[in-house]
Amino acid sequence: MGKNKSTSARKRRPAASGAPDELVSPLANSPGFLFRLAQIRAFDGFHRYFAGLGVTPTSFAVFALIVANPGIRPGAIADELHVKPSNVAALVNALVAAELVVRRRDEEEPRASRLHPTKAGSKAHREMFRVHLETDALLLRHLTQAEGTKLVFLLQKLLQR
Amino acid sequence: MGKNKSTSARKRRPAASGAPDELVSPLANSPGFLFRLAQIRAFDGFHRYFAGLGVTPTSFAVFALIVANPGIRPGAIADELHVKPSNVAALVNALVAAELVVRRRDEEEPRASRLHPTKAGSKAHREMFRVHLETDALLLRHLTQAEGTKLVFLLQKLLQR
Repeated sequence: MGKNKSTSARKRRPAASGAPDELVSPLANSPGFLFRLAQIRAFDGFHRYFAGLGVTPTSFAVFALIVANPGIRPGAIADELHVKPSNVAALVNALVAAELVVRRRDEEEPRASRLHPTKAGSKAHREMFRVHLETDALLLRHLTQAEGTKLVFLLQKLLQR
Repeated sequence: MGKNKSTSARKRRPAASGAPDELVSPLANSPGFLFRLAQIRAFDGFHRYFAGLGVTPTSFAVFALIVANPGIRPGAIADELHVKPSNVAALVNALVAAELVVRRRDEEEPRASRLHPTKAGSKAHREMFRVHLETDALLLRHLTQAEGTKLVFLLQKLLQR
């Protein structure tokens, strides 16, 4: 992957059977396949830079949502992040165990809970968010700023429901 | 997610604490986060349309590479698809068990094997590839053709090494 224009040129030239020095890449122009590779690249960067900060890409997304929306309900997190409610509960449990987040009783619905960052959580989040922005910048390093903006726009347009 | 321009507008307006009707989405413009959502969307489409065809997104990618490069070595698949060699072996085993692929001894390296599609495999692949193209088209349905082409170009540029 990732040889751009030469890839499509190569597609038309089959490798000699039995000794393929240059591969034919049938999925080289497939957006679904490229998303998988981009996701792998993004996770690699995340794991490299977030090592020691105690969060995974998904638990960071949950945490960032709680910090930005103090008092959020777990169900709203599941909807927003396309994560199953049972997985949200597990991710929230880990954030609570790490003392980054607290559950408080929902006064309107006594059986439900609302989530708030702790003081230590808010402080830790500032550092995490800085690292997050650097990780994203690194992910886009081969693109110009205009191309990065265009990519984000196209992804948001693709993801509309 | 996915409300485009309104999302960035909402980001500047914090939700009322304790009753967030509209969420603040701190990752709404994060390419790393958007790749995760795009990947989920792509996999959802794949699983819906490939149900019954007996392949997963990754095993389809392996299979397509074998069909396009008869005689390919397992190690070359691992490199091309960013999958661990041990995972490639498991995926190839499944394709062999389904009689879509056969292993033949590598004449240059007797301990190694080379992979070929079976006749039934080549036939099954034609149907899978047709479904694959439809799945990709569906993934891009909110984009114009020019936008889809631009997105693929930007993904390939981002993924260069």
